[in-house]
Amino acid sequence: MAELLKGVPVAKALTEETAKKAALLREKGIVPTLALLRVGERAEDLAYEKQIIKRCEEASVALRLMVFAETEAEEFVRCFHEQNNDPAVHGIMWFRPLPKEIDGEALRRALDPSKDVDGCTDGSLAGVFAGRDVGFAPCTAQAVMEVLHFYGVDPKGKRAVVLGRSLVVGRPVGMLLMHENATVTICHTKTENAAAIAREAEILVGAVGQARMVAAEYVNPSQTVIDVGINWDAHMGKLVGDVDFEVTEPLVRAITPVPSGVGSVTTAVLCSHVVESAEKLNK
Amino acid sequence: MAELLKGVPVAKALTEETAKKAALLREKGIVPTLALLRVGERAEDLAYEKQIIKRCEEASVALRLMVFAETEAEEFVRCFHEQNNDPAVHGIMWFRPLPKEIDGEALRRALDPSKDVDGCTDGSLAGVFAGRDVGFAPCTAQAVMEVLHFYGVDPKGKRAVVLGRSLVVGRPVGMLLMHENATVTICHTKTENAAAIAREAEILVGAVGQARMVAAEYVNPSQTVIDVGINWDAHMGKLVGDVDFEVTEPLVRAITPVPSGVGSVTTAVLCSHVVESAEKLNK
Repeated sequence: MAELLKGVPVAKALTEETAKKAALLREKGIVPTLALLRVGERAEDLAYEKQIIKRCEEASVALRLMVFAETEAEEFVRCFHEQNNDPAVHGIMWFRPLPKEIDGEALRRALDPSKDVDGCTDGSLAGVFAGRDVGFAPCTAQAVMEVLHFYGVDPKGKRAVVLGRSLVVGRPVGMLLMHENATVTICHTKTENAAAIAREAEILVGAVGQARMVAAEYVNPSQTVIDVGINWDAHMGKLVGDVDFEVTEPLVRAITPVPSGVGSVTTAVLCSHVVESAEKLNK
Repeated sequence: MAELLKGVPVAKALTEETAKKAALLREKGIVPTLALLRVGERAEDLAYEKQIIKRCEEASVALRLMVFAETEAEEFVRCFHEQNNDPAVHGIMWFRPLPKEIDGEALRRALDPSKDVDGCTDGSLAGVFAGRDVGFAPCTAQAVMEVLHFYGVDPKGKRAVVLGRSLVVGRPVGMLLMHENATVTICHTKTENAAAIAREAEILVGAVGQARMVAAEYVNPSQTVIDVGINWDAHMGKLVGDVDFEVTEPLVRAITPVPSGVGSVTTAVLCSHVVESAEKLNK
């Protein structure tokens, strides 16, 4: 039976550390603050939002939650700029994708890099690519690394295969693993024989957004499997990962569950970024 | 015997295309202009400079060559800012590394992104990482792609292994190959069994800066080998690549020579970037 790499203890440890730092800031009169903007009422946004609200409370991060109807594009953009210019706000995040009435690319460009706590500005992307300590990595990508660190899996010298090349997970995870000296291969939709490539990995990261795509032929007995996917399986009537947990769990060394895996850590990383930003802005 | 992927015809075709575009700009009174700054008299800088001078002539790109003694840090920085603010200049490049009296990182940050023809600003790095058409890729990295395109090697679906993870070649080449749908693995000093990994590649890029490191055990008969290395071999008394050409050439499908391979294409890419920048700035 594989070691189960649960996210909850990882998130707990990180959140406790963050809460301590937040308390020190509050003693100085600085309240670490996240502005969270939502348009509409998508179920997945609401689920994620609920987790963020809870985590912010635990981490002593103040949350400004601002909700807009889909017809309120102008109000949304005005609010974004207000938060962006407000020195009391240390991080800004909005749920994506935005409706087409809002120019998300313009917001991304306008976003104050120091408030870019989910790593979408050019400065953050360049930082992740270059391995420089500027900006922030996307929270989910960093959550993968936090899980590995917490459970003592050192990427150094290991073969890592990342399934998926998205700019929010696949690519940044690849870079973060490489900066910790893994030998990284990124697979994607045009990859031939992804299963055979994955099977060579000592660390396998599933970040494709396809329910239970990663099956027995992708894994090996010494593998650590990190499942970033959160997919609604209508047939099974529950959330499942990119990895077929039931099939692969008996075949690998260690594996994250879904839910209660990487996803739990993402909000903890988000709060840690807000506090880090508040520390930097008040140095 | 392997197909020899010479750089000269690649550079020639690209330069002719660039010269045509430059001529159209000159008809409108716009002279595509590159500012090239050098400190000291390093042999490798002088050799590269000579190639740039020649290529600029062929491509109808005006060159402002500015040379400083190592004691003239202040003058260098002043000149950089002059060129950076001069609307008649479309690209700026300086030989690296700079002496420690000059803060190269400050220059990188100050550089007008539109003049960043060798892809070192955050905007260019983010562009390469994100696969967005903003900024410019580092010239040598793009030269690798130009060689592949010219000789009809389509990266799509192929396994590509890049040896070296530098920010000027290894990493950007990896991204450019991935954007063209190769499945990319980046190897580096901490990689275990790099030879075995390289042997699986259909496209192998050597960018480690170590003379003739890539030997027989790295290659296979269907492989295309692109050698980015330019190393002075004191023992042999000549320039050699990262790939041991004599040993590997009989064992692979196609290979670039050193010299007269990728290096010849780099200056052609540089000129094409200057003209592209002039086109964009005058739209």
